[in-house]
Order: sequence, then C-alpha cells, then structure tokens
Amino acid sequence: MNVVVIGIGLIGGSFAKDVKQLFPEAHIIGIDKSDSHLDEALELNLIDEKGDYGVLALADVVYVSIPVNALVHELPKILDVVGDETVVMDAGSTKRLICESVAEHPKRRNYMACHPIAGTEFSGPSAAINGLYEGKTNIICEVEKTAFKLQEKALDIFQKMQMRIRYMNPEAHDKHIAYVSHLSHISSFMLGKTVIEKEKNERDIFDMAGSGFESTVRLAKSSPDMWTPIFEQNRDNVVETLEEYIQNLENFKQLLLDQDYDKVYTEMSDTNKIKQILKGIPLTKNRT
Amino acid sequence: MNVVVIGIGLIGGSFAKDVKQLFPEAHIIGIDKSDSHLDEALELNLIDEKGDYGVLALADVVYVSIPVNALVHELPKILDVVGDETVVMDAGSTKRLICESVAEHPKRRNYMACHPIAGTEFSGPSAAINGLYEGKTNIICEVEKTAFKLQEKALDIFQKMQMRIRYMNPEAHDKHIAYVSHLSHISSFMLGKTVIEKEKNERDIFDMAGSGFESTVRLAKSSPDMWTPIFEQNRDNVVETLEEYIQNLENFKQLLLDQDYDKVYTEMSDTNKIKQILKGIPLTKNRT
Repeated sequence: MNVVVIGIGLIGGSFAKDVKQLFPEAHIIGIDKSDSHLDEALELNLIDEKGDYGVLALADVVYVSIPVNALVHELPKILDVVGDETVVMDAGSTKRLICESVAEHPKRRNYMACHPIAGTEFSGPSAAINGLYEGKTNIICEVEKTAFKLQEKALDIFQKMQMRIRYMNPEAHDKHIAYVSHLSHISSFMLGKTVIEKEKNERDIFDMAGSGFESTVRLAKSSPDMWTPIFEQNRDNVVETLEEYIQNLENFKQLLLDQDYDKVYTEMSDTNKIKQILKGIPLTKNRT
Repeated sequence: MNVVVIGIGLIGGSFAKDVKQLFPEAHIIGIDKSDSHLDEALELNLIDEKGDYGVLALADVVYVSIPVNALVHELPKILDVVGDETVVMDAGSTKRLICESVAEHPKRRNYMACHPIAGTEFSGPSAAINGLYEGKTNIICEVEKTAFKLQEKALDIFQKMQMRIRYMNPEAHDKHIAYVSHLSHISSFMLGKTVIEKEKNERDIFDMAGSGFESTVRLAKSSPDMWTPIFEQNRDNVVETLEEYIQNLENFKQLLLDQDYDKVYTEMSDTNKIKQILKGIPLTKNRT
C-alpha cells in the first residue's frame, strides 16, 4: 500500500506512525514544504522517503495534514493529480471552506472530508506519537460525496486505528467545533496572556501555579501557524462563542460585585453537570 | 504522634494518607461536620477514629482543611483549645482574612498559615489519594509568627511529603493566587456554562470534544462549597483578574472582527512563551 502524508507534523507524523504499525507492508512517502521537517521525519523513521506531487498518481491513500489555509488551495491541486483509486483524507479543524474549495472538482469523489478530534499542544515531526488517534472521534463530512469503494478504504484504516466515526455536515461541524474546541484555545491563550502580563516575575507563576492552572493554560502552547488560519476560516462562529463566553464572565463578575454569593454558588453547581458530559472524553496517553 | 485532621475531604484525606505512610506510628483522628464523611473516612482507613475538639489539647499536629469561610470562624476556636506543643496548619486557598482572624490570638504562635498548591477536581473522602502533595509547593505566610519549634515540626512533615516551601506575605499570596488559580477556575466554569447552554444536545459535546476541551473545562467539576467562599474572600483581587481577562478576550475578538490576522498571530506567538514557564509545574499523578 502506497501512503503519502502531506504535512509531517504532529498530526501527519502520528498518522504515519500508526500506519507503519498497523500496515507493516505500507510504503510511506512524505511531502512537506519544509525540508528540515522532511529530514527530521526520515531520521525519526516516520516516513520511508521524501516525495512531491509526482507520486500522488500512484498513491493508495493520501493524508493531508497541513494548515487549513494551505488546504484550501492545495486540495484542488492534489485532486488534480491523484489516481482513480486514490483516497485523499484531510485532518482540517474547519470543514466548510475546505469542502467548498473542491465542491465542483471533477475528482471530488476521491476526497473524504475528515476532522480527527485528536492532538496535543506540541508540534512538528518530533511531536508525533503512536496511538494519538486511538479511541478518538473522526468527524466525516459529506461522506456521500466520496466514492463508496474509497469510503471503505478510508474507514478500514480509521477502524484499525480504533477511531469512532461521526458524520456531520460541514456547516454544523464548524458551528459546534467553535464551541468545543476553538473557544477553548482562545480562552487558554488569553488566560496565559493575562497571567504573563501581570506576573512579571515568572518565579511567582512557577511557585504558585498548580495542575489547575496548567490545564487551563496548556493550549496556549499551541501553534499560531495552525490556529490563525482556523480562526480566520471559522471567524463568524468563533466570534459568536467569544461574545457568549465574555457575557458569562461579565455576569459572573457582576455577581461578585453585587456580593450575590448564592447566585455565584448556583452558577457553579449548575455547571458541575459537565462532569457527566466529560466522562466520555478519551484523553491522550503520553501526556506529560 | 497524635494527628488530628479537621475536614476529611480530598485535601485532609490525602494528608492523612501521606501521614499514615510516612509516620506509621501516627494515630489519626478525624473531625468533620459531616457524619457520613467521617464514616466513609473510617471505612477507607483514612483515619483511626472520629473525634471532636476535645481531642485537640493532646494533638501534636492539627491539619485544618475546611472551606475558607469556616476556617475564619473555626481557627480561633481551635487555637483556644490546643496544647502548647500543638502545631495547627491550614490548607486554605486564601490567606489574608484567615491570618487576620487569628492575628491577636494568644496562641497565634501555634498556627502556621499554609496553602499547599495541590488538588484535583474531585471532592470528598473517596477522592483522597497518596502523593497528592509530592513535589508540590506549599506557600507559608507569616512564618515568623509561628513558634520556632513548631515551625520545625511542621516543616519536617512537609519535607517528608516532598513539598517545596515558598514564603510569602498573606496580601501578596492572595493577589498572585487570584491570577494563577482563582481566575483559571472561573474561566473553566464559564467555559463549561457557555458550552452547555449552546450545545443543548450533549451528544455533540461528547463527540466533538477532545482533550483540549477537557483540559480547559476540567476545573468546572470543582466544588462550589469550596470555591464560593474563596471567591468571596478574595473578591477584589478576583474581580481585577476578571476585568483584565475579559479585556484581553474583547481585544482578541476585535482583532478577528477587524480581520487583523497578523496581530492574531502575534498575540498567540507571544503567549507561547508560557511553554517555558509551565515546564516547572508538577502534575498530579493518578489523574484519569
């Protein structure tokens, strides 16, 4: 099986690792705009060789894990040159604009629009780990637009990687993901910024911060290269979540100013039911 | 060694567990306003027997791990009845009002004002774990107001529990902790609230939320019984952090509305330096 991974970072590299493990006969070719990433990926044995779009015609599987702004202009070019039996999957954290970019493409049926809900706050080939996708959900959009045989090919891989599949339309995906992912990243970044600005002496942060702080700020380590295009593409939904979040924070602040501690109490106890909801979420192993 | 733990929840229960392990000859008496917690603590072997304030005169060590509003009125009563050689430590997440409550107490020198930066989002005796405090920082305030011999007694225990000690005055503690702990808890609660309100279908949260969401919302499982009094006691500092956090979120939202993605990028990359700062923070083992 010829597998081409375009973008050998955390996401693509981890996919390559899993493929190597689950399909030992697979030959993995890496494509990346960064030569140093490719060299690193070779060194780390994530890929078997470097390549370019010339290899795509003979690929069985193409996994495209690049920033979503790059996806929008690269995906049509990739589809231009793939073979009839090639299935192309992406891992983009937004779906609407990406799906639109290839809506009228003659080889649309070679493409499966995916968003695997998997990741860590780390980046680059050295961040790649085995089992990143295990037990995680893969959101597949417009599945009916992918050729049936190619659906099967892709789903077989995801199944062996032990992913759950959830089907959704691209607009709904972008709307929901703004709430359960994009907003979290912004809250982390801004929390980190607030603390860094105030705590000029970093020693104080070190000494006083516990795992609670760490967990709310962890995502502030995320890559701006990955996240700026995501916020740009999903701007309207993201702005909506920000408005609601800010409103909730303002209200809470007002309750404190009004010294309405009964209401403060209820706000928190009402939100405690997140416990039940969160029970189902699989965490990534190997987290430090 | 007679050890009395007042408040056998996560914090007191974990302290008891560590004491049992490090000081096998210690006799641990539990005091709690909740009979069912005491029964549970006995069942779980966290304590050797139940007691009341009558046992305090003969205690070597008293560990007070109750909500900070209760601390303010109980600590004076506890100091009223302890023996001359008894050291009383608390674990309150605020320090100024608690220190003030016993500032003029004739037995002030029997008290050491502590805030161990340790915890999980779980509560109650069943949440108690070994090693909760290992590698964590204990903030000690007004150490000079504790009798020297009793300082030594307390520090010996913390040392065996492998805690780092950091000395701070109570006002500074409350100011800094608002930024590196209290704000994180509010951000989590409000993030959870925002998502719950929007995502009426909880299935969607399940399916789309990954470990990123989980980490930013984890603290929303925290106990309102513990946190309402903390926010009340540290209100002014907490309101200040909220105002700055909200301002940062507003600014970020405006950048998105202005489509100033270069600035969006820089905001995030500037905050990436949190990576270095967070490197030093020890996480709690046994986290699910």
